[in-house]
Amino acid sequence: MSKLPILIRKSETLKEKPDPNNLLFGRIFTDHMFIADYTEGLGWHDHRIVPYEPITLDPAAIVFHYGQTVFEGLKAFASKEGTIRLFRPEENMKRLNRSNERMCIPQINEELALDALNQLLELDKDWIPTAEGTSLYIRPFIIATESHLGVSSAKEYKFMIILSPVGSYYKEGIHPVKILVENNFVRAVAGGTGNAKTAGNYASALKAQEVADREGYSQVLWLDGLEKKYIEEVGSMNIFFKINGEVVTPALNGSILEGITRKSILELLRYWEMPVTERKISIAEIQEAHANGQLEEVFGTGTAAVISPVGELNWNGHKMVVGNGETGPISKKLYETLTGIQTGKIEDPFDWVVKLEKSLTPQA
Amino acid sequence: MSKLPILIRKSETLKEKPDPNNLLFGRIFTDHMFIADYTEGLGWHDHRIVPYEPITLDPAAIVFHYGQTVFEGLKAFASKEGTIRLFRPEENMKRLNRSNERMCIPQINEELALDALNQLLELDKDWIPTAEGTSLYIRPFIIATESHLGVSSAKEYKFMIILSPVGSYYKEGIHPVKILVENNFVRAVAGGTGNAKTAGNYASALKAQEVADREGYSQVLWLDGLEKKYIEEVGSMNIFFKINGEVVTPALNGSILEGITRKSILELLRYWEMPVTERKISIAEIQEAHANGQLEEVFGTGTAAVISPVGELNWNGHKMVVGNGETGPISKKLYETLTGIQTGKIEDPFDWVVKLEKSLTPQA
Repeated sequence: MSKLPILIRKSETLKEKPDPNNLLFGRIFTDHMFIADYTEGLGWHDHRIVPYEPITLDPAAIVFHYGQTVFEGLKAFASKEGTIRLFRPEENMKRLNRSNERMCIPQINEELALDALNQLLELDKDWIPTAEGTSLYIRPFIIATESHLGVSSAKEYKFMIILSPVGSYYKEGIHPVKILVENNFVRAVAGGTGNAKTAGNYASALKAQEVADREGYSQVLWLDGLEKKYIEEVGSMNIFFKINGEVVTPALNGSILEGITRKSILELLRYWEMPVTERKISIAEIQEAHANGQLEEVFGTGTAAVISPVGELNWNGHKMVVGNGETGPISKKLYETLTGIQTGKIEDPFDWVVKLEKSLTPQA
Repeated sequence: MSKLPILIRKSETLKEKPDPNNLLFGRIFTDHMFIADYTEGLGWHDHRIVPYEPITLDPAAIVFHYGQTVFEGLKAFASKEGTIRLFRPEENMKRLNRSNERMCIPQINEELALDALNQLLELDKDWIPTAEGTSLYIRPFIIATESHLGVSSAKEYKFMIILSPVGSYYKEGIHPVKILVENNFVRAVAGGTGNAKTAGNYASALKAQEVADREGYSQVLWLDGLEKKYIEEVGSMNIFFKINGEVVTPALNGSILEGITRKSILELLRYWEMPVTERKISIAEIQEAHANGQLEEVFGTGTAAVISPVGELNWNGHKMVVGNGETGPISKKLYETLTGIQTGKIEDPFDWVVKLEKSLTPQA
């Protein structure tokens, strides 16, 4: 892996590590962060690792007004032997560039970004928690920093990577959640930005989530924006159904996020030679399968939660309890296999895990 | 108007004013800005006017990752007598709160916000340019500042108002622009955030704008996201057509922004007793009207450009030249009337203009 000339300014005082058994999601950050600046004509420059600290922007920075920004999310794990393990990080950097393309943000050099991440992890490796279900969440993101109130893509950006030790995404750990099928609000349509990891997709989802919260549901299930018939994704995860022995998930259609966990689960199920199909799935079909007793399991997939079993779906007041509201065997097996591969407890037949080379000691 | 206890910290050195005959849009900002903070449990607090300066945020601030932000745009004018004139500012504050509602951001007190704006304008009134076509652009905006990487609405925000002396939005002034009808990308659908002034709507539009730029068009015309048949808006403006003597504009449908200029133009046309209708308009209908020689005028409307006449529409390679590519009489009359009312050259029969009371001298 090529070595990026990164200036490292170490923090003079290291923060106290949080209680590993009581980690919230995305609340606490490590001692350092990575930054690079982009200037039109110069490209990406001034790659540096500095103490985690506030950033200073002009009030007219484009990100505040026109939301030109993209992000990624992935996790680092520490094996028993102390090796730092990353799950398919190259997929995240590829997707970051696909999001960049959609949002008119300049491409990053994926290899250099991974090298920067490795140097940052090496420096903050003591922050990787080791308790069951914990990990170091990695958030690469790019924001448009140019000060300009005209609607056009920026000429200046910041690419940053920050790290946060996390417990399970759901406070309650892996156990089935209740999902409300959303009939009023729309997350995305083909031709929009649904398949880019960009801020606006998440902002537009807050209102439906607020309604779901009030009614006692953890997440919403998004239907397509055109006919409100076909299933897209759940909350900020992809969704899978096991119907009569077959696992199905909505096919990528331009408005669904191309989840890396989704992709890994499809590969894992095919490796296990389980019947699995990517196709259009209507909510009516799910209701029918439920009525016929053929809806065996439902689960969401994403980096943060890995697998999130669904115990109940509510569509227009019709409550569909799935698997007696308990975690199904496929959900459980997928969770255990995927987290096992991530943490090193289970062999990785796919070469998904990237182990950080010990030699990658950061420069002084 | 109620008086808000605003702490004012004046800038020690005042910046040089830009050449009023050579103003770009949204590039230069005045000496001061307004800020208030929101903290859950406390509400909005610490209302203050301070020197225009960079703001400092945690890298995990929700606005960077999940785009929870809203904004407004309005203009201040200086009359010959030196009075500061605002065009329907209460409409902007109302719309800001409608956007807040959609984006799960706490409501602001509209009256207090207008008072804060008045105090800020009083302080920076020498920045209001007086040359033909110039004004002081006002940008109120709210950003989610809480440091948290979970997708939920923030518990902390900043409400800010910044000011920028501007010339015409289009460098070339009022003259017809060429518009490309967008067939691939989608701006918004009903159930999305199209009728909120929120960052994500603008970020998602950049890509189509980039394509239009490359092909020599100033703006794109958005069709509905469902069938790509019906006209929504143009660039970041609403759109009007004059067909066979009647002015028509797309009816508000949940995905079109409720423009204040749009509303004012409808009121003005009705006051003039011109036939005007808000309804669904298909792009095919426009092409037919053009073919029949009945498409008399096309113009966009918005705060930044006021009226932007359209000289050519390109739909799938069919070029429709409108009014010989020249500014039509209604576009011209609307532009002159609206800017005349705004600047005080023409009487304001609607009481749209709010004049700043001289007594509103900021506290020392």
